[in-house]
Amino acid sequence: MSVSVSAKCLAISGGVGGAKLALGFAHYLAPEQLLVVANTGDDFVHLGLPICPDLDTVMYTLAGINNKELGWGQAGESWHFLAALRALGGEHWFALGDRDLATHIQRQQLLGSGLSLSAATASLCRSLGIPQALIPMTDDKVATIVHQQAGEPLAFQHYFVRDRCAPVVTGFEFSGIQAAAPSAGFMAGLRDPDLGAIVICPSNPFVSVDPVLALPGVLDAMAAAPAPVIAVSPIVGGLAIKGPAAKMMAELGMPQSALAVAGHYQGRIDGFVIDTTDEALAPAIEALGIPTIVTNTVMVTLADRIELAARVLMFARQLSARSASA
Amino acid sequence: MSVSVSAKCLAISGGVGGAKLALGFAHYLAPEQLLVVANTGDDFVHLGLPICPDLDTVMYTLAGINNKELGWGQAGESWHFLAALRALGGEHWFALGDRDLATHIQRQQLLGSGLSLSAATASLCRSLGIPQALIPMTDDKVATIVHQQAGEPLAFQHYFVRDRCAPVVTGFEFSGIQAAAPSAGFMAGLRDPDLGAIVICPSNPFVSVDPVLALPGVLDAMAAAPAPVIAVSPIVGGLAIKGPAAKMMAELGMPQSALAVAGHYQGRIDGFVIDTTDEALAPAIEALGIPTIVTNTVMVTLADRIELAARVLMFARQLSARSASA
Repeated sequence: MSVSVSAKCLAISGGVGGAKLALGFAHYLAPEQLLVVANTGDDFVHLGLPICPDLDTVMYTLAGINNKELGWGQAGESWHFLAALRALGGEHWFALGDRDLATHIQRQQLLGSGLSLSAATASLCRSLGIPQALIPMTDDKVATIVHQQAGEPLAFQHYFVRDRCAPVVTGFEFSGIQAAAPSAGFMAGLRDPDLGAIVICPSNPFVSVDPVLALPGVLDAMAAAPAPVIAVSPIVGGLAIKGPAAKMMAELGMPQSALAVAGHYQGRIDGFVIDTTDEALAPAIEALGIPTIVTNTVMVTLADRIELAARVLMFARQLSARSASA
Repeated sequence: MSVSVSAKCLAISGGVGGAKLALGFAHYLAPEQLLVVANTGDDFVHLGLPICPDLDTVMYTLAGINNKELGWGQAGESWHFLAALRALGGEHWFALGDRDLATHIQRQQLLGSGLSLSAATASLCRSLGIPQALIPMTDDKVATIVHQQAGEPLAFQHYFVRDRCAPVVTGFEFSGIQAAAPSAGFMAGLRDPDLGAIVICPSNPFVSVDPVLALPGVLDAMAAAPAPVIAVSPIVGGLAIKGPAAKMMAELGMPQSALAVAGHYQGRIDGFVIDTTDEALAPAIEALGIPTIVTNTVMVTLADRIELAARVLMFARQLSARSASA
């Protein structure tokens, strides 16, 4: 038995790193073949508005309007609102661009009219001409809390943006996760008989991916899904491509390596993808019982994104074939 | 008995016309001599935000950041938020500029923290460096409703902005006015023993001034105040300088003239100010028992604004002296 090339892919994504690979999938697959599930543990209410950083980064990326320099927000963004808010003595530590603000205001209107976050996201995506399905991990409220060595636990955006990841972390907590349900679209995606791959994008394992995996029922549904689960390492050569993943690993007493990421996902994935830089780690990861491929995972160009997407999907087909013949 | 030159002035204002004269007063008087009370009947909640068009027009004018071309909003405004909101399918008929938006968001934050509209306005004014007192007519909710010939009554901004004043009006209603109290600052201003003039600025009599005068207790307090009430005609040569006042008068079956405005205010004012264009109307207005002066009321330049302010205050002193000697 072999898996069809037209099989679907469910990509689990945090912000910028995940969005890059999601864009690769979007270019490689037909629109109906891709479902991107985004972390919402970073979501928070700011200035009375519902802010969904990871959903928006993926959404702007799929719409081709993402800000490549910043890694968040919209391209060609202006900041007149923020400057005026600052002059009025307002809370300006979280940078909301003028265009970006429309997303949050419109999402608030949609949620206020009774739509779920899934439905509101679908509406925004339709308006932006995104043909793929982008789905929040849950329609319920989950808030990532960062436990730090010196001080009270921090709301994620306070840690991440306001305090610029400076605090030394000791662990994470996903407030509300036990009462939260995975979104209907997420669960339907995992149960889709046409599913060919579940891909954990190269996002932060602790604060972007773990909240998704910690939702009640998700790990079981992933294990029961007809597709292998493949994670792409966000750590290359001991460094995070972007964000605090490597710093967190050091603070949590873990080696800063793709091997440690594989260990973190052990028991939850069927395959692992590492960068050519880390080729020497492949045997150690395989020794954990995790089939591993080595390829270029540093996505600089759009071609890099598409190539990695194709490579990951080929790996998924190989794993499925291996599993079917076993 | 003569009224001191350092007496205070309480100016009742709607949007752009009133704000012009308020600016004249601000330049002519010491900051502590001026209290501007703005209509809030136009206020509404839009996109979840509390919008106060008249308060903001006066505030931006006193801060020197008003948009002179538009007559509302901020100078040098940008519209990226609105364009993005439109692209997202959002409600874009009410033009919110990027900088202006910060005012509404910050006001929402201040109101949400428990401040009254008076206190929130004071905070915004402080941030903008406005030394004069700008006070909403009430801290309670009053909504101007426009009754129209052909159709259901309209919320004011739907009539004014969305429908561009096209509907034929048959009357106005100030929803909530009976349960509303004039703001404490407004009433304190009317009771101030140093008050030398109460000026009804050249704003729309029906939808900018009448809501203020309709607040329970205001007319009594004005009658009991130690200062004369002077209205400046917003109608010059049968036309409104700005806005739908003249159109409304025609639709309400009133002559479109300064005389009709004087008649509208009859019994509530002690003096009336008309433009030189309307000099011929002065005897008819005086015949209503309303002392009237003729001067240039069309405020094109800042000097015009200051000159009119000075002329109105001189008139107030004359009326006070006359009343004291009577």
